[in-house]
Amino acid sequence: MADKRITQYISPGAWALVDPLFSDRARSILTTLIDFQDVLPSEALFHAQLAPHGPERWASVPTVMDQLKGRAKELGLWNLWLSGGDFQGMAGGEGGGLTNLEYAVMAEVMGHSLVLAPQATNCSAPDTGNMEVLARFGTPEQKQKYLVPLLKGEIRSSFSMTEVAVASSDATNLKNTTARVEGNQVVLSGHKWWISGAGDPRNAVHIVLCVTDPGNASPHKRHSLVLVEPKMKGVKIVRPMTVFGYDDAPEGHCEVIYDNVRLGVDSVVGGKAGLGRGFEIIQARLGPGRLHHCMRSIGVASRALDLLLQRVSDPARRTFGKYLREHGTVLADIANSRAEIDQARLLVLSAARQIDLHGAKAALKEIGIAKFTVPQMALRVIDRAMQVHGAEGISQDTPLAAFYAGVRTLRFADGPDEVHVQQIGKQELKRVEILQAREAAVKRKAAALIKEAGLAKAKL
Amino acid sequence: MADKRITQYISPGAWALVDPLFSDRARSILTTLIDFQDVLPSEALFHAQLAPHGPERWASVPTVMDQLKGRAKELGLWNLWLSGGDFQGMAGGEGGGLTNLEYAVMAEVMGHSLVLAPQATNCSAPDTGNMEVLARFGTPEQKQKYLVPLLKGEIRSSFSMTEVAVASSDATNLKNTTARVEGNQVVLSGHKWWISGAGDPRNAVHIVLCVTDPGNASPHKRHSLVLVEPKMKGVKIVRPMTVFGYDDAPEGHCEVIYDNVRLGVDSVVGGKAGLGRGFEIIQARLGPGRLHHCMRSIGVASRALDLLLQRVSDPARRTFGKYLREHGTVLADIANSRAEIDQARLLVLSAARQIDLHGAKAALKEIGIAKFTVPQMALRVIDRAMQVHGAEGISQDTPLAAFYAGVRTLRFADGPDEVHVQQIGKQELKRVEILQAREAAVKRKAAALIKEAGLAKAKL
Amino acid sequence: MADKRITQYISPGAWALVDPLFSDRARSILTTLIDFQDVLPSEALFHAQLAPHGPERWASVPTVMDQLKGRAKELGLWNLWLSGGDFQGMAGGEGGGLTNLEYAVMAEVMGHSLVLAPQATNCSAPDTGNMEVLARFGTPEQKQKYLVPLLKGEIRSSFSMTEVAVASSDATNLKNTTARVEGNQVVLSGHKWWISGAGDPRNAVHIVLCVTDPGNASPHKRHSLVLVEPKMKGVKIVRPMTVFGYDDAPEGHCEVIYDNVRLGVDSVVGGKAGLGRGFEIIQARLGPGRLHHCMRSIGVASRALDLLLQRVSDPARRTFGKYLREHGTVLADIANSRAEIDQARLLVLSAARQIDLHGAKAALKEIGIAKFTVPQMALRVIDRAMQVHGAEGISQDTPLAAFYAGVRTLRFADGPDEVHVQQIGKQELKRVEILQAREAAVKRKAAALIKEAGLAKAKL
Amino acid sequence: MADKRITQYISPGAWALVDPLFSDRARSILTTLIDFQDVLPSEALFHAQLAPHGPERWASVPTVMDQLKGRAKELGLWNLWLSGGDFQGMAGGEGGGLTNLEYAVMAEVMGHSLVLAPQATNCSAPDTGNMEVLARFGTPEQKQKYLVPLLKGEIRSSFSMTEVAVASSDATNLKNTTARVEGNQVVLSGHKWWISGAGDPRNAVHIVLCVTDPGNASPHKRHSLVLVEPKMKGVKIVRPMTVFGYDDAPEGHCEVIYDNVRLGVDSVVGGKAGLGRGFEIIQARLGPGRLHHCMRSIGVASRALDLLLQRVSDPARRTFGKYLREHGTVLADIANSRAEIDQARLLVLSAARQIDLHGAKAALKEIGIAKFTVPQMALRVIDRAMQVHGAEGISQDTPLAAFYAGVRTLRFADGPDEVHVQQIGKQELKRVEILQAREAAVKRKAAALIKEAGLAKAKL
Repeated sequence: MADKRITQYISPGAWALVDPLFSDRARSILTTLIDFQDVLPSEALFHAQLAPHGPERWASVPTVMDQLKGRAKELGLWNLWLSGGDFQGMAGGEGGGLTNLEYAVMAEVMGHSLVLAPQATNCSAPDTGNMEVLARFGTPEQKQKYLVPLLKGEIRSSFSMTEVAVASSDATNLKNTTARVEGNQVVLSGHKWWISGAGDPRNAVHIVLCVTDPGNASPHKRHSLVLVEPKMKGVKIVRPMTVFGYDDAPEGHCEVIYDNVRLGVDSVVGGKAGLGRGFEIIQARLGPGRLHHCMRSIGVASRALDLLLQRVSDPARRTFGKYLREHGTVLADIANSRAEIDQARLLVLSAARQIDLHGAKAALKEIGIAKFTVPQMALRVIDRAMQVHGAEGISQDTPLAAFYAGVRTLRFADGPDEVHVQQIGKQELKRVEILQAREAAVKRKAAALIKEAGLAKAKL
Repeated sequence: MADKRITQYISPGAWALVDPLFSDRARSILTTLIDFQDVLPSEALFHAQLAPHGPERWASVPTVMDQLKGRAKELGLWNLWLSGGDFQGMAGGEGGGLTNLEYAVMAEVMGHSLVLAPQATNCSAPDTGNMEVLARFGTPEQKQKYLVPLLKGEIRSSFSMTEVAVASSDATNLKNTTARVEGNQVVLSGHKWWISGAGDPRNAVHIVLCVTDPGNASPHKRHSLVLVEPKMKGVKIVRPMTVFGYDDAPEGHCEVIYDNVRLGVDSVVGGKAGLGRGFEIIQARLGPGRLHHCMRSIGVASRALDLLLQRVSDPARRTFGKYLREHGTVLADIANSRAEIDQARLLVLSAARQIDLHGAKAALKEIGIAKFTVPQMALRVIDRAMQVHGAEGISQDTPLAAFYAGVRTLRFADGPDEVHVQQIGKQELKRVEILQAREAAVKRKAAALIKEAGLAKAKL
Repeated sequence: MADKRITQYISPGAWALVDPLFSDRARSILTTLIDFQDVLPSEALFHAQLAPHGPERWASVPTVMDQLKGRAKELGLWNLWLSGGDFQGMAGGEGGGLTNLEYAVMAEVMGHSLVLAPQATNCSAPDTGNMEVLARFGTPEQKQKYLVPLLKGEIRSSFSMTEVAVASSDATNLKNTTARVEGNQVVLSGHKWWISGAGDPRNAVHIVLCVTDPGNASPHKRHSLVLVEPKMKGVKIVRPMTVFGYDDAPEGHCEVIYDNVRLGVDSVVGGKAGLGRGFEIIQARLGPGRLHHCMRSIGVASRALDLLLQRVSDPARRTFGKYLREHGTVLADIANSRAEIDQARLLVLSAARQIDLHGAKAALKEIGIAKFTVPQMALRVIDRAMQVHGAEGISQDTPLAAFYAGVRTLRFADGPDEVHVQQIGKQELKRVEILQAREAAVKRKAAALIKEAGLAKAKL
Repeated sequence: MADKRITQYISPGAWALVDPLFSDRARSILTTLIDFQDVLPSEALFHAQLAPHGPERWASVPTVMDQLKGRAKELGLWNLWLSGGDFQGMAGGEGGGLTNLEYAVMAEVMGHSLVLAPQATNCSAPDTGNMEVLARFGTPEQKQKYLVPLLKGEIRSSFSMTEVAVASSDATNLKNTTARVEGNQVVLSGHKWWISGAGDPRNAVHIVLCVTDPGNASPHKRHSLVLVEPKMKGVKIVRPMTVFGYDDAPEGHCEVIYDNVRLGVDSVVGGKAGLGRGFEIIQARLGPGRLHHCMRSIGVASRALDLLLQRVSDPARRTFGKYLREHGTVLADIANSRAEIDQARLLVLSAARQIDLHGAKAALKEIGIAKFTVPQMALRVIDRAMQVHGAEGISQDTPLAAFYAGVRTLRFADGPDEVHVQQIGKQELKRVEILQAREAAVKRKAAALIKEAGLAKAKL
């Protein structure tokens, strides 16, 4: 029965809530995706095909990836994140047509194989966000040139925003990359880093945030996005940044210098009319992407818990005559992990549902809560899984340490936890007025009731 | 609009998920209940009407309670917990006919006024569980005598289980209360404590767990439940136990001695045929009750957060020139409380939905997770609310300390957290077999893929 | 051997560090105090002698207290907190002459019997702080009238500072109590609460913080302290505030109204010259008192752990065939409690030692850290102890819930945790300049070394 | 003044406690060591001199290391861990002659430069433990061949214990490496991993735990230690294990196969008489080493906090117009880090002092508590430091992520936290008997007092 396979991934309680909100088609895609989980056996091959070091590590992508992409397309597991609208009628843009709620469940399942599944289904960051930008704000030429091959999975892309020595969580700080408009040309210069995917040999376009109108009175109208191809003169990939020692080849998170790169003004996203709209566009890009990261992180946490359960049941790992799973603290780790994963999933699902009903803006509180709670939750679960694995848990022989490193980045990406915490706190405070009015009414009525009854408060 | 009023209590994300599962009638009851929240102004009156100390504190119930009960009946907010079935056709048993999911939301709203709302709507423990026992296992006479007036809210009841100096979380330990069957009579003797409601002047019946067949080979067939009236000879209310200094008058949690209380054998729940069925019956009693406590606790936590928000916005409480709400750590407290309440609510709703679809037994994992996570969550939120209130927060001038004390008991009631944590851990481990099979298949296939590709693992 | 008795209270590691810093006399007092721990058996008697409710509960002090005080005097366990100096040559002021380090250990031992031991040895708040104020700032007449009987334990006292509806942690907020100077008279009016000890029949003096110079340009020169006797006309004890549900009779924490109380100007602490010095004096009062609370709280936590250890070893409490102490999570609770108590004690001892060597001002960081960490630690330990006791742990049958309530107040008393956390954070930031200079030098040298070696940073 | 320099590393409160226990010589060494902290500028050079990948990464050690070692020797900062005794009169064995308490402070200072300082001063694991083994249990020939050059820092060594697919925390599980005694020869075969230092080109000896007497009735007499040189036939370094993504070259933590390595029986530690003594020897090895790791970890945490303080004070990192350090949650992170570091240091110092006074065995509880609390503390502090650094904090541009990875291993090394937690819990429970006797006496006396007073407990 389909449900049994689904509830091996999504807790029965969560499924009971969302099942009525799933279309038959979505339910069918979901079970196909679950079966496609034989991406898992390809992980070892992927790592074996990757050169261990040196320039060749960045020169090609393990061939297994293309095989998986082909298979995903055949199975109809392609561009599932695409919700239609902006992509209709576009070559390669058939996509999933799923609701955010439906896609949330898919993304969690993909998270079990974080390295392969999202890319194999063309659902991986930063491409998905970049495709949205191009679809909503690109010119027809830009769509033809970059969006169509991205939708087909033929090329990859980067979003080039973070600057060296600058607190990027306040994006108005970003001013060290400039694009000087000279007639029909734009000359781009700047120094960026943490540009995900910039090491990838398939990368064909960077969407670069840069200052085009430094004198504009509004700090939110000074920036534009320009499209740069990595093969252009002046684009220099300096080095991959490492994440807890990992280089995440062949994609990488690179330091990049744009040294007087000359572009046509038609390289500005949206063309000339796009000048000064950088901020507006990146705002639009962030909402759903944040949730996608959360969804996948829950899948990562689930896989970590699955590994934990297996490890503590391994007869070879008994200590002092006991299975690890017989230890009270291990049972507590398991129960707490289960409880935390289940709660986080429900939170993300409720945010996705909220987007479906009322749009991303109305769901800002739900998305923000998910943004700062889910990665922290996943890190706790992964850490418990590492701990029961002993040293093996932090080595190359399990995926756990790489999971930890990957999820750890989400506590800063798109703004550190602290920023989101403060924003949620402030949003919640907006309820105060209603509460105060209600409380005042309660107090008035309470006083009247006490008086009417001829009573007073207790004394010594 | 109804929804706006609802989402002041239930987060918009949660409501977006459960709204489609609500009947129109349930939606209407819910908004009526929300409006009935003018139970809140009656809290002060209730406390003022209660004698501050001495025997008179236990002699009568503040008259405001009966007024609230009358109003609740008029509004159709009576016995909302009643899901039908066992109570059909019974005087006073019209009830709510709500699903568990629908009732979960109602119970949370009631939790905002923990002292008054549940009782005013005849939805309070231990009466609800006792009514279930009588409805499912009582004889027609027992139903007529106790169940009908309970359903009408005319009497109250106790469940008398916990024994002095015994670890009650393992109920087979309970053997210090015995009922000797002597022909058509039963002679009950024993020493119980923490008998909630036993101090209440309206209390008309204790359901007492006692040993009737100490020699039975099965430790689960030695016990029976008997119905005892507090006015009977030999029933002695020793003292109220206090909870962090609170006596919870006029209901109390009392120490009770049954000293050779003589009963007819028809006082055994289920009559003579009920002998030896004590365990079976108390098992059936526990499931939904646990969830009801969780639901109300979420309401308590929500009210605590509401109080926190108001306090930190109070201009009189500024320190060093700043509103309390401007402090970063206060904002973090708010955001974390919001996040934790929302997650806990979703968890409880998913458990309730699971019961609705598949029954309480199928929902044991969800219920168990809620059981140990929700009270801990509520205590954290209440504690943060107390902290921003300063000393006032732990005094009689806010409900917070009493909330804390009340919720703290739920970490032992029906088994301490630790027992539930261990059980959830063990249940989760049942997934291991499937996981191991899946992992073995993954490893086989991975090895084949690597071999096929003529590769090996990386070396030094 | 003395050491063995001591290390039953103070961990061997801590004792190994501080033993060389103890005088022989202090070591002898300490062992005498440990033996005097038969205050513990008097706790039950104290509670039994206290009227359960009503005015008589506040009318007299259980007689056992005076017996204990007599015994403590005989044993030389009187006024141990007195470090000499200000009290020399004063009747009753012989005191302990101990270092802060030595007294810290004593205070922890006293904390095991929080209700009786500090008062029995005349070492309890708020008297100790009040005696310091009188000794350092009082006129000779004030000393004779109030300090001498306080030192002898004949009367008790209150410190009257906190005002209703005001954030007292910023003391400049306190302006609702005023003392109008009219020639040689002072007319005091105001509304205070949380006045500890104001319910005590032995109370003979309140030290009241009030505004005497509202127009003074400096907000720190507007206040004075005046000495008020509770029997004076216009002093009204409104009610005891409760802490959770405890009234802490017969001492209480009371709401007090001063309604045009007429005093001589010689009632100002320090006499006329003391006008406007209120702030200066209360600052001086706070340092060591904060540490005393911490010391006692560690004793409270230790007793809670002792009770926990005994409970989990009780054969009657086995569940499912196991002692509670065999459960892994219980062992973890024990180990973590041990670790946390031991660390907290060392912290307090290091702060006390720092005061001994360099004065309270130089120890502000250490004191502040202790202030916000120790009560939180003690609450965690007490909560774990409550949890293993089940419902009994929060009842009147163990001291744990009262411990919890008592220690919980310390998270606001003398400023909430948050204020101290912020201050420590800011103090720590003062190290930045030195760090930056050091870091700049490191970077310069590192760059030179790399250059000298003809190397550069690694590339892609 | 010396003290000021010291209290930049060790909190003033801690120094106030331990200063009287320091010899003048130790105080002088300590300040020399603090000045030697110009190891810090060499860190960048060390990494630049290390080949980024490939076999050459393991072929040589950056030359800066030998320069630092030379300088350390000149300054008298060599073998500070050596406490004398076993090493007296041995070439190179002059050492520090410090108490454990004195060395604890030194080791913390070294922890600030975890990669360079310990090795530069010949105080790094696993060499120190290995030297102790050789000094206490080695034959004169073994000392001459391996111990003397180790003491001089000419060679390095490994301790080869952990086996693949075995829970090593229960060392009786280790049975997959065997040494068959054949006359005067021993033939060693087995598969080990996580052999620290086995990748180092200077490595000249592995001390290998292996089974020599599998049939012995006592599981603690089946093992021996044998000395193997990596250049011997049959020793195969398979690969370095990674820790997160770090290989810790050139030392590494390697997988090693011993394939029929033929040794003389004089290669058994202690010679023929050492057969069967493997367990006895490794037990002796563990105590002080555990504490050394803790000491250094506190230094690591301190450096992380130093980096945090500088980062949040960086004007370039202001967000929304505020320095990071102005945010309330950042201040809380700082204050909590300060509090946790200070407490952990005091704990370690008390353990070291306990060893000095009563020996390592008497300090088992203190050592065990430090073992499971200090690394967790350090990880929390490092994580906070990473968080304020944003993505840079987990990259190769700060040492933080490598610190995290390095300290994370200490939560399994020499037994996972859980094992130590359980052991401390059990040790603490040994106090129960004394407590029960005391409690029984208290209860008896309390009952007598109550009876004598003619009182009883309160009733309803």
